[in-house]
Amino acid sequence: MRIGGRHYQTIWLNADGWSVEIIDQTRLPHRFETVTLRSCEDAARAILTMQVRGAPLIGVTAAYGLCLGLREDASDEAMDRAIADLARQRPTAVNLRWALEEVRAAVRNLPREGRVEAAYRRTAELCRDDVETCRRIGAHGLDLIRSIAATKQPGVPVNVLTHCNAGWLACVDWGTATSPVYHAHDAGIPVHVWVDETRPRNQGAALTAYELGSHGVPHTIVVDNAGGHLMQSGKVDVCIVGTDRVTANGDVANKIGTYLKALAAEDNAVPFYVALPHSTIDWDLDDGLDIPIEERSADEVLKMPGRLPDGSVVTVEIAAPGSPAGNPAFDVTPARLVTGLLTERGLCPASREGLLSLYPERGR
Amino acid sequence: MRIGGRHYQTIWLNADGWSVEIIDQTRLPHRFETVTLRSCEDAARAILTMQVRGAPLIGVTAAYGLCLGLREDASDEAMDRAIADLARQRPTAVNLRWALEEVRAAVRNLPREGRVEAAYRRTAELCRDDVETCRRIGAHGLDLIRSIAATKQPGVPVNVLTHCNAGWLACVDWGTATSPVYHAHDAGIPVHVWVDETRPRNQGAALTAYELGSHGVPHTIVVDNAGGHLMQSGKVDVCIVGTDRVTANGDVANKIGTYLKALAAEDNAVPFYVALPHSTIDWDLDDGLDIPIEERSADEVLKMPGRLPDGSVVTVEIAAPGSPAGNPAFDVTPARLVTGLLTERGLCPASREGLLSLYPERGR
Repeated sequence: MRIGGRHYQTIWLNADGWSVEIIDQTRLPHRFETVTLRSCEDAARAILTMQVRGAPLIGVTAAYGLCLGLREDASDEAMDRAIADLARQRPTAVNLRWALEEVRAAVRNLPREGRVEAAYRRTAELCRDDVETCRRIGAHGLDLIRSIAATKQPGVPVNVLTHCNAGWLACVDWGTATSPVYHAHDAGIPVHVWVDETRPRNQGAALTAYELGSHGVPHTIVVDNAGGHLMQSGKVDVCIVGTDRVTANGDVANKIGTYLKALAAEDNAVPFYVALPHSTIDWDLDDGLDIPIEERSADEVLKMPGRLPDGSVVTVEIAAPGSPAGNPAFDVTPARLVTGLLTERGLCPASREGLLSLYPERGR
Repeated sequence: MRIGGRHYQTIWLNADGWSVEIIDQTRLPHRFETVTLRSCEDAARAILTMQVRGAPLIGVTAAYGLCLGLREDASDEAMDRAIADLARQRPTAVNLRWALEEVRAAVRNLPREGRVEAAYRRTAELCRDDVETCRRIGAHGLDLIRSIAATKQPGVPVNVLTHCNAGWLACVDWGTATSPVYHAHDAGIPVHVWVDETRPRNQGAALTAYELGSHGVPHTIVVDNAGGHLMQSGKVDVCIVGTDRVTANGDVANKIGTYLKALAAEDNAVPFYVALPHSTIDWDLDDGLDIPIEERSADEVLKMPGRLPDGSVVTVEIAAPGSPAGNPAFDVTPARLVTGLLTERGLCPASREGLLSLYPERGR
């Protein structure tokens, strides 16, 4: 996608052919800075501190982290250690483990001297696949938005509500939940996005709004509290969110607060779609309430980074001094509240049968 | 209630017998400062800028504003003008108009020279009544919390979730939604409060947490997104919130986001109570969706005040530069989602019949 007229992806190999460059998403929207990853530890830290975030991008970053680890030591023992180190940085997203296993499978039976090259090659494929996957999600989602636009007066925008950032910054390019929006905008369909701020880390106000603004898509930031009222007032035509893990029965783990929006959507008959690549499906879990929910630092709730009028960025304390905070990072939206799952293979009901209709190879 | 060991109410008459002192709630939790109101305009500004907020406190402040206005000009024309000026500062809360009409009724048939004294006398009564009303709400709510505590192991706290600030800072003393909590805590029942941050103005993190901390009540601040997950996880025994207006059929206007918590409570069979004084009931409206919803400044969403490490208070911009924001301040929770209305006369169903059972004089 474009930032200041230049095309970017969220992660890329540097000209040296081995070090990895990422956009530091903890600096956005205040600063656009990139960071160089030169070791497995660099990659693990980038995932933990959320310099990269979003299930698909976490997966690709972990894969590159494993490449960097194998450069230092290509033994089976070192590989196992690197995979364990990388996988434990974020417990909820399933893409992280999936991508690591993809790289492991690509190098497992190779002699040590061939492993690094094979790992980089497989990771580059994962990147290309992610871009293509997101593009396809967008193409299928475009059909959805087009059908809603057809029910409106010409020129009246389709109002999409989204939570957190499941945009191109969460992936390599395009995004999952926002890919249909970009496709619709580029196809000339008027579209307007209600951007949930997404406390505590403000990925909506900081990242999704930044993305949409950079691409010229009309949007309005609202606090997370506002979505129910917007839906009650008929101001939302469709909700589209991303996800960090979908269980085999269609339950959806996503950024904390997603469940509340799904409840409001159901109460107001607003369709609620979840966009995801196949790598986000956890075929081994049948109940979303079994998904481990990451508890993050209280500081994310009690402190907030922001820009002073002089442009400098500071972190301020925003709550009553001495009060503790809890910070569960995800919640689970039961499949019964999900209108449909939007994947690179199309739309399906949020159920085992629905998922198997798109991924019949999993039913064997 | 106590701040630093000293007893405070939120508003009081100064020793001069006419000027009015308030706690400046826009400075909390970073600074404890009071402001002197010397004119009707001062009172109107304090209400608009939310130096005072909370339906009951807005009402009392408006009443004092009218007293200050009458001191300058006690004519009928000036009184009408002052009432109109004060009433239009916040459109959603009904207590504002109610309190002004109470003062008007007390002075209407008096000669001009007697009006000021009568207005101050009636306003002092409104203050005393508000304290007593909130105390009674707490006594009735104490029964509720006691009955939940009886279902738990001894010593295991009752977990209450509240949204925004319906504490003593929203009233003259005690609060509405928090009054049961203070009563339970003071009665030795272990209680713990999940405090919704309450974006955009953070009344939960800034005011409710400050109140509870000052009084020694265990509490944990969470982002507004977290409540659904907490209820799914069995960590909430009861929700208690305040309200800015309850319609005659039991629909509840309250701080934006309340509706989302009520939906989650229903989905998880958590009882959801709304605490209110009789002055918050709008007997003239039968549908909550007819309540005017105040749209406030986008800056409340895009900027945030906070403390720097050196203790100074600054305001930072937190969102993507150039992105617009919407800021509806309230939403409406349909009566069907409300387990009960908790008033100074006790608990009733959220319905016309329920309200009339407590206020039969309204059924005539």
